[in-house]
Amino acid sequence: METTESAPLSVEDIRSDFPILEREFDGTPLVYLDNAATSQTPEPVVDAIVEYYHTYNSNVHRGLHQLSQEASIAYEDAHDRVAEFIGASGEREEIVFTKNATESMNTVAYAWGLEELGPGDEIVLTEMEHHAALVTWQQIAKKTGATVRFIEVDDEGYLDMDHARELIGPDTAMVSVVHVSNTLGTVNPVSELTDLAHEQDALIFVDGAQSVPHMPVDVEAIDADFFAFSGHKMCGPTGVGVLYGKKHLLEEMQPYLYGGMMIEKVTFEDSTWHELPWKFEAGTPVIAQGIALAEACDYLDEIGMDNVKRHGEALAEYAHERLSEFDDIEILGPPADDRGALVSFNLDTVHAHDVSEILNAHGVAVRAGDHCTQPLHDKLGVPASARASFYIYNTREEVDKLVEGLEDARELFA
Amino acid sequence: METTESAPLSVEDIRSDFPILEREFDGTPLVYLDNAATSQTPEPVVDAIVEYYHTYNSNVHRGLHQLSQEASIAYEDAHDRVAEFIGASGEREEIVFTKNATESMNTVAYAWGLEELGPGDEIVLTEMEHHAALVTWQQIAKKTGATVRFIEVDDEGYLDMDHARELIGPDTAMVSVVHVSNTLGTVNPVSELTDLAHEQDALIFVDGAQSVPHMPVDVEAIDADFFAFSGHKMCGPTGVGVLYGKKHLLEEMQPYLYGGMMIEKVTFEDSTWHELPWKFEAGTPVIAQGIALAEACDYLDEIGMDNVKRHGEALAEYAHERLSEFDDIEILGPPADDRGALVSFNLDTVHAHDVSEILNAHGVAVRAGDHCTQPLHDKLGVPASARASFYIYNTREEVDKLVEGLEDARELFA
Repeated sequence: METTESAPLSVEDIRSDFPILEREFDGTPLVYLDNAATSQTPEPVVDAIVEYYHTYNSNVHRGLHQLSQEASIAYEDAHDRVAEFIGASGEREEIVFTKNATESMNTVAYAWGLEELGPGDEIVLTEMEHHAALVTWQQIAKKTGATVRFIEVDDEGYLDMDHARELIGPDTAMVSVVHVSNTLGTVNPVSELTDLAHEQDALIFVDGAQSVPHMPVDVEAIDADFFAFSGHKMCGPTGVGVLYGKKHLLEEMQPYLYGGMMIEKVTFEDSTWHELPWKFEAGTPVIAQGIALAEACDYLDEIGMDNVKRHGEALAEYAHERLSEFDDIEILGPPADDRGALVSFNLDTVHAHDVSEILNAHGVAVRAGDHCTQPLHDKLGVPASARASFYIYNTREEVDKLVEGLEDARELFA
Repeated sequence: METTESAPLSVEDIRSDFPILEREFDGTPLVYLDNAATSQTPEPVVDAIVEYYHTYNSNVHRGLHQLSQEASIAYEDAHDRVAEFIGASGEREEIVFTKNATESMNTVAYAWGLEELGPGDEIVLTEMEHHAALVTWQQIAKKTGATVRFIEVDDEGYLDMDHARELIGPDTAMVSVVHVSNTLGTVNPVSELTDLAHEQDALIFVDGAQSVPHMPVDVEAIDADFFAFSGHKMCGPTGVGVLYGKKHLLEEMQPYLYGGMMIEKVTFEDSTWHELPWKFEAGTPVIAQGIALAEACDYLDEIGMDNVKRHGEALAEYAHERLSEFDDIEILGPPADDRGALVSFNLDTVHAHDVSEILNAHGVAVRAGDHCTQPLHDKLGVPASARASFYIYNTREEVDKLVEGLEDARELFA
């Protein structure tokens, strides 16, 4: 785990790249602990966006003029940069830019699932899937007659791997699993699940929305067939997501969004498709956003993803320990020393929404709700939870402020 | 047409809002005439993006903390602002933000077309449709067994309305028509087509990608059922498109992209959907982009859309007149005084790509290719064309530079 050749992370230096962290509300400084929903955006990334609009904003691929050439090179290279960031050796051909991770999942569900699935086929999910995967596969199953099955989550918040081995069988066509749970913080054994899927000739889709921002990820080491994540959770802008797919799979798949940019030849009667990855990027793509995402990869690599991982997990561990001091706080998911950079919890007798509002009065921004995992919350028997999620610019002092806010909440509702 | 209460447009003032226009290539100033592909982005819009990331970047809808409230209000209000800009009285409920106009069309093709169309149903397009509509409906027709028919374009570049009346009949389920042709510059009689469609109980989809940026548009006056356009052609950022739909139609339609934000209640077995427009915006939406698009609406309204229209059309008329002086230039589409803000043409004996490259050496950025209308180019018997397209910051002097560049091209290839 500790492959520390990179220098330790200087939180102070990092914070200076994020002007938003200087915000105060009536004199109370912002403590931003909602990073699993959206991370903040460092100046180099904002600068890349401004530079784009100030100097080379143009449509891509089709233009022969100077601006279009500059924009095309930057946009196309951004795909290679993202490929490198997640270890995809097929470079741009394996990287599709979408508007968000959800669209990435829908792309596979439509382009592969709607064509390939039918009655008798099984899609194996986990009980901790985000709605992006859960609702998508559920609805595609309804359209195709396939069946969805769920690997159970045990009391500690881990996947029941015996149940996984039981469910993943000869009828399994697709296994879709979240890499790091956005609610529990569980880091799932995706390589083991990949092996189980491939032993049954099933494909595996990994939802990396909460892993790619927080740890080194190598999609080829995982051997994922498809992998999705979004830019806005990893220092990038809103409006860009990524779909990685193994080249031979993307080649075999038909596109599902149609329009300009993704075609080769069009007649009134029929059409043929452009080469990868463009056949999956219909219309004017997310140009500024894709370029800015590549800049976010540079930013994170400069810090070092090992450092990013260590810092976030250390804060989650500390938060877990501090929250464990409260008898009336129930923490969801695995133990302190075995989780991603987030802690979801409930304060006995106080609804998560009220917790969030009281914390907000302390300047502390956490998320309260079902975190797009309603069925998991139902299973856990709680309507909602509060979630503190950490990133490179957060500090132990901010965790302490979270705890102070919770003490206040408890007194108010005592 | 001339409802001039608004002040005339000061091009000099406007140009000062676009730093990119100061670019030079080896001392040659940029003449940006590729606005039909992507318009440039004024400082107030860039500032809105920077302000978002600097002060209130956050995920929307679900958060109770201050940043999320600020982002939610701005993002949701942006829908109302866009609704107002195109005369949609249903406000945000009728405005879906997508990543581009192409996705807007695919949304209707999938959410309405895939469910409602079948053998015997006809989709009526025009021969001048952009690939975004043409390829999309063509492929949805293949999936559903519906038939696509094309209203012919006459020698002057107008729709053959007799043919339209012939084609639009009791079997017509959908009429999908481009408002202003991105290749010919033709402004189509969409209200008349709407009447024809509605007389047959068919729906009509209007592709407004080239109209909304350039003229006052009132979707209710047109009586369009669906209407699509994109942000990056109207001073907005890349990565945001708009789908307008009549409220009752959007209500009846099932969503087609699944995930967070668009659901109401999810169990392992099934899901129900959020209210409009959110049920069509799955996942973290295009937050910064939607907010910046609203700012672009403000920017254009301050200039006045009547002024925008007059300025662009006057430049197109002037360009048409200047190009008509050349015996060896063939201009596509309607006469000088009856077109949108663009002129596509071919210089005899010189391929459009070569024309574009020579113009680029003069600093003049035009588009060369098929402009995503391959079947139209096939019909016209040309493999490609060069296109000069104008916007609020362009001048007659820039048209003169275009002409100078063409004189050079002609000499080089003489």
